[in-house]
Amino acid sequence: MDEFMQAAIAEAQAGLAEGGIPIGSVLVHRGIIIGRGHNRRVQKGSTVLHGEMDALENAGRQPASVYRECVLYTTLSPCPMCSGAILLYGIPRVVIGENRSFLGEEALLSSRGVALEVLDDPTCIELMRRFMAEKPALWNEDIGE
Amino acid sequence: MDEFMQAAIAEAQAGLAEGGIPIGSVLVHRGIIIGRGHNRRVQKGSTVLHGEMDALENAGRQPASVYRECVLYTTLSPCPMCSGAILLYGIPRVVIGENRSFLGEEALLSSRGVALEVLDDPTCIELMRRFMAEKPALWNEDIGE
Repeated sequence: MDEFMQAAIAEAQAGLAEGGIPIGSVLVHRGIIIGRGHNRRVQKGSTVLHGEMDALENAGRQPASVYRECVLYTTLSPCPMCSGAILLYGIPRVVIGENRSFLGEEALLSSRGVALEVLDDPTCIELMRRFMAEKPALWNEDIGE
Repeated sequence: MDEFMQAAIAEAQAGLAEGGIPIGSVLVHRGIIIGRGHNRRVQKGSTVLHGEMDALENAGRQPASVYRECVLYTTLSPCPMCSGAILLYGIPRVVIGENRSFLGEEALLSSRGVALEVLDDPTCIELMRRFMAEKPALWNEDIGE
């Protein structure tokens, strides 16, 4: 598998091991990971640090020129908040582990010219399937439902 | 002026006094402020804590039923990221200090049923006008330009 999706999955698994929501992400600039992250709702009581947001936060302050050459990898289809962050920073390409468990704002991203690739990855699907079955209330909280 | 927009402006002014970007926000549930925040790009090196995001973060973990009864006050028109967060959590109403300095995703929010009120407030306008003139590079960084 793609080494970057592998890194995003490793982040998701780290989150799960911490008792958190197993969604991970990495931000890649010119073939180098500049930010890694995973959902921090449980760990930090955070409502804004979804996996993608945590990766963006950990990448630190970057000029627009860097974001415009980045690819964001995420184990799950990006929600409205994370999709909005992708649009804000003009990230041109997003690689998505799967969108069976949750379908985010892929149509909006595509309509704004963001290139999307959905891998339909079995590891990503299984991580979410198990989590959603075990902790449905926590999952609903994370997506505002 | 509305006490909640006044509280959002006080947050923006606090951010300015810290050397930061003067945008503030408060999240109000049934007439009570449950989260206050301001942009933390400079103060925390944060790329995700815009004013609205900081207010949401400081409100802590809330059930969907609370968000659905909230009003978000922000001194400036919400960017794509903050608009996405509003959609994620299903916040039904947003009061915006001004949208002359920056027009965010108001059309998207309206199309999804979010009620918007733009106050065109002179204090909010002047805060941004002065900041954008004094620190244009910092402002551009904050909006990914």
